[in-house]
This record gives sequence, structure tokens and C-alpha cells, in this order.
Amino acid sequence: MVGLGRMGGNMAQRLLRGGHTVVAFDQSAAALAANVSEGAAGADSVADLVGRLAPPRAVWLMLPAGEVTEASMEELGGLLAPDDAIIDGGNANYKETLRRGKTLAERGIHLLDAGTSGGIWGLTEGYSLMVGGDPDVFRRLEPIFQALAPGPDRGYCRVGPTGAGHFTKMVHNGVEYGLMQAYAEGFELLQAKQDDFDLDLLAIGKTWQYGSVVRSWLLDMAVRALEEDGDLESLASYVEDSGEGRWTVNESVELAVPTPVITAALYQRFRSRQEQPFSGRMLAALRNQFGGHAVRNIEP
Amino acid sequence: MVGLGRMGGNMAQRLLRGGHTVVAFDQSAAALAANVSEGAAGADSVADLVGRLAPPRAVWLMLPAGEVTEASMEELGGLLAPDDAIIDGGNANYKETLRRGKTLAERGIHLLDAGTSGGIWGLTEGYSLMVGGDPDVFRRLEPIFQALAPGPDRGYCRVGPTGAGHFTKMVHNGVEYGLMQAYAEGFELLQAKQDDFDLDLLAIGKTWQYGSVVRSWLLDMAVRALEEDGDLESLASYVEDSGEGRWTVNESVELAVPTPVITAALYQRFRSRQEQPFSGRMLAALRNQFGGHAVRNIEP
Amino acid sequence: MVGLGRMGGNMAQRLLRGGHTVVAFDQSAAALAANVSEGAAGADSVADLVGRLAPPRAVWLMLPAGEVTEASMEELGGLLAPDDAIIDGGNANYKETLRRGKTLAERGIHLLDAGTSGGIWGLTEGYSLMVGGDPDVFRRLEPIFQALAPGPDRGYCRVGPTGAGHFTKMVHNGVEYGLMQAYAEGFELLQAKQDDFDLDLLAIGKTWQYGSVVRSWLLDMAVRALEEDGDLESLASYVEDSGEGRWTVNESVELAVPTPVITAALYQRFRSRQEQPFSGRMLAALRNQFGGHAVRNIEP
Amino acid sequence: MVGLGRMGGNMAQRLLRGGHTVVAFDQSAAALAANVSEGAAGADSVADLVGRLAPPRAVWLMLPAGEVTEASMEELGGLLAPDDAIIDGGNANYKETLRRGKTLAERGIHLLDAGTSGGIWGLTEGYSLMVGGDPDVFRRLEPIFQALAPGPDRGYCRVGPTGAGHFTKMVHNGVEYGLMQAYAEGFELLQAKQDDFDLDLLAIGKTWQYGSVVRSWLLDMAVRALEEDGDLESLASYVEDSGEGRWTVNESVELAVPTPVITAALYQRFRSRQEQPFSGRMLAALRNQFGGHAVRNIEP
Repeated sequence: MVGLGRMGGNMAQRLLRGGHTVVAFDQSAAALAANVSEGAAGADSVADLVGRLAPPRAVWLMLPAGEVTEASMEELGGLLAPDDAIIDGGNANYKETLRRGKTLAERGIHLLDAGTSGGIWGLTEGYSLMVGGDPDVFRRLEPIFQALAPGPDRGYCRVGPTGAGHFTKMVHNGVEYGLMQAYAEGFELLQAKQDDFDLDLLAIGKTWQYGSVVRSWLLDMAVRALEEDGDLESLASYVEDSGEGRWTVNESVELAVPTPVITAALYQRFRSRQEQPFSGRMLAALRNQFGGHAVRNIEP
Repeated sequence: MVGLGRMGGNMAQRLLRGGHTVVAFDQSAAALAANVSEGAAGADSVADLVGRLAPPRAVWLMLPAGEVTEASMEELGGLLAPDDAIIDGGNANYKETLRRGKTLAERGIHLLDAGTSGGIWGLTEGYSLMVGGDPDVFRRLEPIFQALAPGPDRGYCRVGPTGAGHFTKMVHNGVEYGLMQAYAEGFELLQAKQDDFDLDLLAIGKTWQYGSVVRSWLLDMAVRALEEDGDLESLASYVEDSGEGRWTVNESVELAVPTPVITAALYQRFRSRQEQPFSGRMLAALRNQFGGHAVRNIEP
Repeated sequence: MVGLGRMGGNMAQRLLRGGHTVVAFDQSAAALAANVSEGAAGADSVADLVGRLAPPRAVWLMLPAGEVTEASMEELGGLLAPDDAIIDGGNANYKETLRRGKTLAERGIHLLDAGTSGGIWGLTEGYSLMVGGDPDVFRRLEPIFQALAPGPDRGYCRVGPTGAGHFTKMVHNGVEYGLMQAYAEGFELLQAKQDDFDLDLLAIGKTWQYGSVVRSWLLDMAVRALEEDGDLESLASYVEDSGEGRWTVNESVELAVPTPVITAALYQRFRSRQEQPFSGRMLAALRNQFGGHAVRNIEP
Repeated sequence: MVGLGRMGGNMAQRLLRGGHTVVAFDQSAAALAANVSEGAAGADSVADLVGRLAPPRAVWLMLPAGEVTEASMEELGGLLAPDDAIIDGGNANYKETLRRGKTLAERGIHLLDAGTSGGIWGLTEGYSLMVGGDPDVFRRLEPIFQALAPGPDRGYCRVGPTGAGHFTKMVHNGVEYGLMQAYAEGFELLQAKQDDFDLDLLAIGKTWQYGSVVRSWLLDMAVRALEEDGDLESLASYVEDSGEGRWTVNESVELAVPTPVITAALYQRFRSRQEQPFSGRMLAALRNQFGGHAVRNIEP
């Protein structure tokens, strides 16, 4: 396991609990020590980690997408032997994965992309794994997936060749954006009438959890959030996005598949991070120009 | 129980199974007979039904919103006595419910609006009930709600005064539209790459059911649909909408709350029922006018 | 002319310049005095105004939609005689106009709805008038429309019976929202790359004014705004909306006509007036719950 | 002038009418002959064309974006001398232009990107030119731009360095998509009420042309289209898109600038080309699964 952050650390733990032997590496000594204390063997470096594994090796990368993953992939390409396998559990763009898969295949190294969902809850509940790669290698590594996913034959599958895993995970996250925004809009409507109807948002959320068409794990998370802070008063409306939502929109543009809901969800996040966007200033200026309508000035 | 359609019939059954005495009425003799065979007492008319109940009565309406509900409500207004209660389990517009509640209150009759979710699965899994109305009457009727909802203290609650139940149910359905469209877009993206990656949509759906952030009851329904017809080949892309989605959009306009996802979901349904919409013909005409771009003609 | 605000005052002036006799009334003595100094005859009251006109009378209302228009319409209904005409140049909801038209018709009074576009520029450039009402009365009043619109046979027409004028104006304003937002988004994209490319937004706007597909009167207004303040630095992104955009969305819901662009434009205005909307706080809370992602707190 | 299609041919003509000497080339002998008959000197090949020009040369490319432009650019790179200039008037992606500009700059060749709007009307009305490139070379070539644009100091400008022209043109086209969709939605709403109000869409369009806030050149085109076919009856709702709308959406994703209107306009075009999209079939399947709602089957 290379990368022992929030996700990788938990996954290593879950593997250990499942009876697997784990050699772990992270640039952070603290993260490594925490894992070693759980039972993992600690490696000094990626090269050391590779040396400690018996072929055919399986190296799981759980790193930030982009440069860090690219660098590790290149390093491993030089260290591993034919028939060894890299499993990229991070959120790489599937086109990058296709490219890396080809490069590694030239050296006989297998790349499996294991799109991983579950967040911080995966440790206890198991992860959902969408795996792309060679079917034989997938079967060889299946005990690993079984240990990470909720149970035998559930929560993981080989969705296709290398690249298909990250593609499927990208779509998964696009759907996630849409679902989240749907709930967010609903709760905002409830909140807008909260005073009129004396609505208890938490109680409503709980009622929806059982028997309703909108029950879901994300709704469970909403209920948890409302339990902690019924009005979400302390929270700012500032919402980050990671790459997958953007890639999903780019993909829908490339495939000419309209995705108005997923895209609107992404744009609402963009908007949440803007103050005084130029478009709104232009609209105010236009209304003033043609209709003499009043404008507000930015307070200094 | 007045109205023994898909929803009302199942609810009467669930009440009977819960040990309640049910007097039932429906204009359809067949629907009534089916219910009587399950143990309900059959009434010849609404008046007969009212006569068979001991005060304070509880009359549950499970009727189509609009004229049918309005007519029954008026009839019941003339038949019931002070402290009797009508429970409207249908999908009425909450503004109608507010109006009806006031009219009935003048005669001392209570109106509770019990927004009901669960569809045809409510019979076995229990319904989610969002109830508006007087708190004392709510408590009096609580055994009914307990029998209909998944279990003690789960799946039902009093969300506020009369009107609040249907308001909450309206928002619930708006959220449902958004959730459904999010999954629909995701599966369409997967389908668009199905050939490239040899994707198995059913297997992906199953993988998402366990451990993933997007797991939900609606996803379970998607998996069921794909199990029956993996490519949904026999189905037309023709999607009805009922009133609640439209009311949610109208409400968001009235409250000045932006709901881009819920609204996009509704509009995609509108669009699914259009052939050759005028807007598209105008776009084609414009491109031809300014750029000389080719147009397609409608085949005769 | 009843109502001498920004619109009504200019219209009275334009009528006077066109050689018409104008009797004017406004509750504001200052507005009335200004109009009288331009050549209008001032009336003390609506009743006085009606008394000063020879039958068949033509009373043009240029009042805020809603209660003020309703009250004036009722008052005029009691003062006018059969075959007199009221022209409502304001932005009433067309359904209100249909209702008022019926009520007035019972007394033999004609209601024409003259949807009026042009803003503060109408005085010099003429207005665009979309008129609904009886064709014979329309012809009788045509000299008035000719004086207000850009020129003979241009800028005004009878679009249909009473109600059709306000319906058409409502759609006009919906389109206007969409157009404005399209430009606003374009300029925001340009501004986002302004530093990279050293873009001069004003120069680009001017270039688009001539020969381009996007040239329009609204673009001319954008250029004027950028001439006054190249970065719109002093303006807040706070955008009001009046009723017509909302009615257009409600109408599209009623007609099941998808209007994603007009609706998005309206919602962006709603969003411009929100700080820390609940939906965004819920999204941040959800991300924190399932992924442990950091949140921002509202600064006290 | 390399490329004598609908755009390039007209531009060559306009240059000739402006007193410029034009050497023209096109792979189509017919297109070339047509241009020669207008007064252009015909070249046998790109090399021949280069040979007929005196340094510092100006070669205007008016070719389809992508491979054709790439190939010509490479060929010209080998033929031209330092201080010569290529003007790319096509709709290249600005990132491609940045790359090509760098490559050509290594040989001392200037690349100017002249985003060109105006369609088939540019011949008579002049084009709008958004030019990126070296300011000195821009000034040297200004007589060309003056001949192509509506008039001195109008309709063209240098918007920034190489790449800025195509970036600005991309945004221009994104705005165009939004504007077109806004009108299309408005006319569809009018058409949906056409029978109720006996609306004459052409007459309404003409009324909007004068004095209204929505008057524009695109509206003029809509009026022309309605003049030719008042109900657009013969036209299919099938709308192509070229690359710029897609690039604008990708750019807004990259810049995190929400562009709901431009994106919705693009997605409506995608949707216009779909029959029975998978998303709609999934929605119908879901409604059937959870609510027992009827579905429509595709007719064989």
C-alpha cells in the first residue's frame, strides 16, 4: 500500500483485519508509524516496498491524482517485473489511466484501476470497488477486493479493461454530485418555509429514511449532519469540487450526452466559491443601462 | 379508507394486518370486493362509511388530487361531526390543503395531510408519512401511522400544522425527480461507453449498491430494472410527471430559491414527451439563415 | 395617462411630441407638474381625468402591476362609459388581464393590454408595443401606438385578443433574461482570462457590435456599461427580478415546455441575492460527513 | 487566401472589392475558378501561392479546424520566411493556436488568430474580427482587416497576443448559443399558446425588431425564417453543433466559471439529435419499478 492518507490508511487496516499481509509506505513518518502499529510492515521507500514483496507483486497506490500518481507510476515501472500488478485506487482521469496502462504493458506490468467509493466509512462498512484490468489478474487479486468490499460477491466487480474502472468511478462521482445537489435543494426549500410551518428538518430527514422513495446513504449523512447542527449555522456555503465532476461534464460534452443535472450540481459548487461574480455585475449594469434600475455598490 | 386504488388498497391491507378495523369504500365494486375479502368492512357510499364509524371518526382519503379529492372533502364536510378527522394521504397541492383545512375547521373538523411515499413497496416495507395537523389529533391517530410506517418511531412524524405535510411531500417528490435524473444521466454516460469498455451496467449497478456513496433505494430499483431488461431496449423514453414536481418548481420561483437540479429533472421529462419541438426547429432555421448551415426536413 | 413614473412620464412626452393631446394624472404632484410643463393637461384625480376626456375615451395606465393597477382598474370601471377603452401598458400577469377584461366587458368597456418594451430609451427611440384587444378598438387607437413606436408600421402590432399582449410581453421578458445571462456568462469568461491574455473587454464588446452574430441592442448596453466602468468594479453582483421572468417559468411549467435557459437566467438572479444559502451549507456538511472533507465556518 | 469555402470565398471577394490583391488557393478547382473569375490570382498549390507573394507575406487560412488546418500550418511553416505572417481565420481551439504560435515563432513566423464572425452575411455587411497576435504585425495587416470589417475602426480589433483571438471567438460563439436558445424558448412558448390567442409569430417577431430590449441581428434572422415558413413546418428539430460551444463549456469547467445558460443551450442541441435516450428509458423504468406506473414501449 503506497499512500496512507485518509483513504489508504483505512484500506490498509481493513486488509490487515481481513488477514492479509500488508507492506506499507508513506512519505509521512507519522502516517507510516500509525500503520505499522496496526500490523503493517513499514517500508523505507517504494523501492524497499517492492523488494519486500514476492512476485507476482501487487502494489496498491492510494495517492492524489495527477503529478504524485504519475511520479509513483513511473518509479514503479522501473522497479517492477513482468506479471507484477499496480492497482491504482485513486481518482485518476481514465484517459491518463489508459495511457499509463499502455506504457506499463510494454514492460509486461499490469495496471488495474480500482475506482474506490465509500469515504471514511469504508473502514467499517467496506468500499465499493469498480475495477478495470486484465480478467486473469483481477481473479488473482480478488481476495484483496473481497477484503475491502462489503462482502463476498458484493461491492466490487471487474467492470472492463484497464481504464474502465476509473471511467465508471468518474460517472459514479458525477451521479453523486447530482444526488447531493437534489437533497441540498430540497432542504433549502424546507428551510425557506421553516418559519411558516415550524418545520423540523431533522425530523423530516429521519422520516424520509424509512419507507420513502428518497431514502439513501447520502440522506443518512444529511440526517447525521442535522443531528450535529440542526440549522447548519456554523457552516459556510463554500463547496470544493475534485476532478471527477469536471471530467464527467467534459465527458458528456465529448460524448454529446446531455447531463443537465450533473452539470448544474457542479456549477452550483463553482458558484458557491464566488463573491461578486462578473456576470452578476454585468446583469446589474445592463438593467441600469436600459431601464434605469437601481444598482447596489460593493461596500468598501 | 376512501379510495382503494394501488395505494389505498395496499394501505387498507397493511392496516388490517396491523390489527386495525377498516371500513372501506371505492366507486369500483371490484376494488371494494378485493378489500372486503382481505377483511375490511365494505361501505356502500361515503355516507354509509361515515355511519359505520364511531366518533371521533378518522376517514383516510387516498384519492387522486384535484376534483375527486375536492368533491369527497366537501361531501365529508357535510357528514362528519366536530372533532372528527379527515386524513388526506393523496398528493394535494399544499395550498389547497391550507384552504380546505380552514373550511373544515369552521365546522370543527380536523384535516390532517399525510404526505405518503413508498409506492407499491409500501405494503411490505411500510410507508414514509409526513403528517401535518393538530398535534393532539396526530397523537390520537398515531396507532394508524405506526401500522402504516416501517416501525415504531420510524418513517412517520408530524412535520407541522395542516398543510405542512403536503408541503413536505411536495419537496420530497422534487428531490426524487432530481435523484432519478442524476442516476439516469450516469447510466446514459455508461451506456454511451458501453461498447468501448464492454461495460456491464447491471454489474456496475450492483457494485454501487454496497459500500458506495450513491447507494440508495432508487439505485436498488435501477438494478431491478436492469435485471429485467439489461438494455431497457423495450422501453420508450417517454416520462410522465405528476403535479408535485411542477409545484416544487413553482414554489422555488415563489420563494426565490434556485433549484436548478430539480427543475432540470422536470424539464427533461417534458422534453421526453416532445417530438420536433418548435425551439429546435427555430435553432435549425437560425443556423441556416445566418450561416447557410444545412437543415433536416421532417420526413413525411 | 395615469401614472407618470419613469415609463409613463416618457410616454406622455412622446405622445405630446407626436401632436397628441394628453391629460395626465399621478399621485405625485412633482411628477404631474413635470408633465404639465411639457404640455400635458394635469388632472386632480382619475375622476377628473375621465371628466376631461371626450368619449369614446382612451385611458392609458402605466402603473406597477398588482394592487395599484387593480385598484385603478376598479375605479375606472365605475367611471368610464360603454365603448371607452383602458390600455394597460404595465407588466400585468396576463391571467389577471384576462379576468379584468371580462369584468370590464360586462360594462361595455374595452381593455387593451399593451405590453411595452424599450425602457428609458423609449422616449428617443420609440417603444415596442405588443397589443391585445378588440381589433376595431385597436384600429381606433392606432395613432397613439404610432406615436409611441419607432415608426409607421414598425414596433407595434395587435398580437391577439385581450390578454395576448401581456402574454407576449411576458415571453419577451423571459427571452430578455436569457439573452442577458448569455452575455453575462460570456463576459465573465473573458474576465476570467483577462490577465492571461490582457483582454480589453470594452474593445471586444465594440468589435462584436459590428458584423458579428451576437450584435444586439443589449450588447450596445453592455458596451455603454463598460465605457463607464471598464471592470464594473463599483457594482455589486446583486440582481433584482420583476414578475415576468417568474411568470414565464410558471407558464413553461404549465405548458410543459422546457425552458432551461430562461429558467437558469432567473435562478442566477435568485442566487445573486443569497448569502450562504442553505443548499451550499448542506453540501459542505455532506462532504464532511462522508469524506471527512474540511469545511469553512462563517466568520462571526 | 487558402480555403475558398463559404467563408473564405466571400472574404476573398470582399478583399478584392476593397482594392486588395488576392492570391487564392483551394483544393477544389471549381471554387478556385469561381474566385479567379472575381479577380483573384489562382495558385496551383500552397507552395505556388507562397511563391507569388512578396515578403513579408500574409497568408490567410480559412479552413476547417483540426487536421486540415494543422496540415496547412505545418506546410506553411516550411515554406514561409521570417517575418511572414499566417492569419488563421478559422475556428481553431485557442490552445491549439497557442501551440502552433510557439512552433512558428521558433522560425520567426508570426501567427495571428482572427476569430471571424458574420456567416454568409459578412460579404455584404462585413465581418467581426477578433484578432490575436503581435501588435506590430497587426498594424501592418490592418488594411486587410479594415477591408473585411464593417468600416474604419469598427468590427475588428486586436484583443491580445496569439491565442486571444480564438479564445474570444470561442466565447463569442458560446454567447451565440445562449442567445439562440433564449429566442428558441420564447418562440416555443408563443407557439404553445398560438391557438389560444391566435398569435402571429412573425408579426410578434417584427414588433420586437423595433424599440424592444430584445432586438438583435439574430432576431432579424428569426424574422426572416418565419417569413419563409411561418410555422417552420418543414424543418426537423435537429441541431448540429460545432466545436466552439463545447470548448466554451470545457473552458468554463477549467476556469470554474458557471455558465448554466451556455451549457443548457449546448445540451439542448445534443438532445435534439437523440431518439429514445437511455436516460429517459431509465426514468420510465424507475417509475415503473417503484410506483407501478405505466410505460410506453418502442414501436417496432
